[in-house]
Amino acid sequence: MKNKVTPKILPGFLELLPEDQIQFNQMYQTIKSVYERFGFLPQDTPIIEYSDVLLAKAGGETEKQIYRFQKGDNDLSLRFDLTVPLARYVAQHCNELVFPFKRYQMNKVFRGERPQKGRFREFYQCDIDVIGVDSLDLVFDAEMPAVIYNVFKELNFGSFTIRMNNRKVLNGFFSELGFADSIGDILRTIDKLEKIGEEKVTEELAEFGVQEDAAKRILAFIGAGGSNDELLAALEAQDIANETYKEGVAELRQVISYLRRFGVEESAFAIDLTIARGLDYYTGTVYETMLNDYPSMGSVCSGGRYDNLTEYYTDQKLPGIGISIGLTRLYYQLKENGLLGNAPKSLTRCLVIPMGEDAMDAALEAAAALRGAGINTDVYYQNKGMKQKMKYANRLAIPYVAIIGEDEKAVGSAMVKNMESGEQSLVKIEEMAAYIG
Amino acid sequence: MKNKVTPKILPGFLELLPEDQIQFNQMYQTIKSVYERFGFLPQDTPIIEYSDVLLAKAGGETEKQIYRFQKGDNDLSLRFDLTVPLARYVAQHCNELVFPFKRYQMNKVFRGERPQKGRFREFYQCDIDVIGVDSLDLVFDAEMPAVIYNVFKELNFGSFTIRMNNRKVLNGFFSELGFADSIGDILRTIDKLEKIGEEKVTEELAEFGVQEDAAKRILAFIGAGGSNDELLAALEAQDIANETYKEGVAELRQVISYLRRFGVEESAFAIDLTIARGLDYYTGTVYETMLNDYPSMGSVCSGGRYDNLTEYYTDQKLPGIGISIGLTRLYYQLKENGLLGNAPKSLTRCLVIPMGEDAMDAALEAAAALRGAGINTDVYYQNKGMKQKMKYANRLAIPYVAIIGEDEKAVGSAMVKNMESGEQSLVKIEEMAAYIG
Repeated sequence: MKNKVTPKILPGFLELLPEDQIQFNQMYQTIKSVYERFGFLPQDTPIIEYSDVLLAKAGGETEKQIYRFQKGDNDLSLRFDLTVPLARYVAQHCNELVFPFKRYQMNKVFRGERPQKGRFREFYQCDIDVIGVDSLDLVFDAEMPAVIYNVFKELNFGSFTIRMNNRKVLNGFFSELGFADSIGDILRTIDKLEKIGEEKVTEELAEFGVQEDAAKRILAFIGAGGSNDELLAALEAQDIANETYKEGVAELRQVISYLRRFGVEESAFAIDLTIARGLDYYTGTVYETMLNDYPSMGSVCSGGRYDNLTEYYTDQKLPGIGISIGLTRLYYQLKENGLLGNAPKSLTRCLVIPMGEDAMDAALEAAAALRGAGINTDVYYQNKGMKQKMKYANRLAIPYVAIIGEDEKAVGSAMVKNMESGEQSLVKIEEMAAYIG
Repeated sequence: MKNKVTPKILPGFLELLPEDQIQFNQMYQTIKSVYERFGFLPQDTPIIEYSDVLLAKAGGETEKQIYRFQKGDNDLSLRFDLTVPLARYVAQHCNELVFPFKRYQMNKVFRGERPQKGRFREFYQCDIDVIGVDSLDLVFDAEMPAVIYNVFKELNFGSFTIRMNNRKVLNGFFSELGFADSIGDILRTIDKLEKIGEEKVTEELAEFGVQEDAAKRILAFIGAGGSNDELLAALEAQDIANETYKEGVAELRQVISYLRRFGVEESAFAIDLTIARGLDYYTGTVYETMLNDYPSMGSVCSGGRYDNLTEYYTDQKLPGIGISIGLTRLYYQLKENGLLGNAPKSLTRCLVIPMGEDAMDAALEAAAALRGAGINTDVYYQNKGMKQKMKYANRLAIPYVAIIGEDEKAVGSAMVKNMESGEQSLVKIEEMAAYIG
């Protein structure tokens, strides 16, 4: 006898039991249907690509995490996000696409990082992006949070806040103060405010050449509170001549004005000047999304506007905007926090149970009739006792059971039992679909 | 300026433009909904697994084709089918699953074979399997072709034949004749019948020790024609004492009797004694499915019964039965043969077009109302001429366009145009969903 191999999967890979998979798929389907409702087209790029194509831009951390290997003469990599494949796709098929090109892709990506709780090496990203040729209207900057709003509204995991900023506001403000090159350092330092206090933050800012006066101004600017309209007014009231700043503030006001027209509730979005996102990548509006009751989850949907998607592949200027939901992580965290409620244990609406071999033909015909009416139907074929058969229905929480024995067969009927209420009735085979429907 | 990288993908990988992707996804969805209608549960296993787990059984060709690589200390492989991951999953989660365990998985698998027309290195397999503990009722052998029947009926690519055989019939027949060890060689030789003729086949069979008399009997047996009932009668009339043979014939009769009860048309299935499938794997009923008008495509859905799914991982005996559709290959071949018809170019039902910036607010509100009613709606945001805007609608073949200018805005309406008929009407925003729906 051969030695057995222990059946196991790698750490950092999520695999679900059927009922959890059903719940995961429901979330996937909700996101997908909202994406489609906003006019996005489906995309499905290869998981394996040429390393030089996939890594045209990458470097540092990304390159270390990537699953990269040789096969024959080819240096190959597994995609680590869906944005680089999008850039490659758009550059490659530019002449065949309709612009503005709106696409969604909801597929697995791979990052070989050190596995830790809630971090995954293989995970679903659910992305939408819009790509324009040469220019892309500012309304798209409002459409993105409108999509986020509809997705999280329909996912129904409680209140959430879409935090919005504009990189031009940040860039302009810090340029005006003479710290254009230290934006990242300064924002990271300010991020520690709650943890280490204002005094310590001011001290650390001094290390980047930020004097006390400037530090005060920066902290007041970044930390300003108030409603969206109050914040916009405060931004406009700033004594800043920088043109980029002014442009950024005007964009922010315009985007928020559009956003209201999309029917997004005021309580669901908030200007937040601390948000920067990928510093070398985003150039305009940026987003993060927080579940209000679970701030420790971090952002569950992020993105923003970028000037030139395909610069590593083509000279054509293709600006875009996009957002991404890390579905695997979101699912995992919601589950861990007990926010998912009970999952349906199967997709089946009715289990037909033949009482003995003689009733099998009638059972098969009853099941065929139900399926013909579009009702997900299972039949218990195994030659077991009634207890076993009912156990199957119970463990899968199938809402209806249709029992067919000799008596029921004789009158072309089934004894249909509502498993929740316990109610049961003799129902004609041809009336079962309507009864159960 | 950095050098540009040529945007391209590997040969043997399928990537689709949006309208083709929509069509592919429709096929995917049809298969999925039939699988669910028969009570199968969703499964989604990792793409990357430990090599020793994935290759517990494999050998020969499979091992050569596999994408296998080292990452850190781990020897990893990409799955090359969905059956081995199923076996691993069932062995691993045995105590948490409800048996008979019916699952579907419709995901990508990877085989690094030499790329050639119509062969893919990354492709979707759409599998269903049922796994029992210790035993699995024969009705499942009929459920599989019933599922195949419903899938191909709904895919609607013309008539098809589900060819069925039973390995016990073959094994028993050849054992009786004393050729139990040469079944594979003999069947492969017989397979050349049409190409090289009976005389040449008989010559080649002699190489495997098959005398002329035996060859005649084998050819008559394998090549027998007739209806399913005639073939069953002929099999039963054979003068063969072998018990396995008798069991196989009885199974075949029983399965076909069940199959009729599933509502499967007689013309859609046929006993075919030439079908053997994976010789070291299948142990009972086996299937292949041919599109009658495109025999050159080969089998588009195959599978069968196996005695012990998880033998490499556990001592428990878990018999099963399953089928698989190679969707990527099927899609590609249907497309090549012009069988797919026109694909919808987008999933969007209505494009809202604001005439100028002043109408944008009304356009956004109209779109929000349509989306609220579940209608996929896009808005043309770009500041372009009317011609450009209509071109977008035309290229994406969006069925309705709703134009909103100052006049329409003033009366809370849109000029809704049916793009196919050319008909247009002024419709109140709140009545648009019903008008377009």
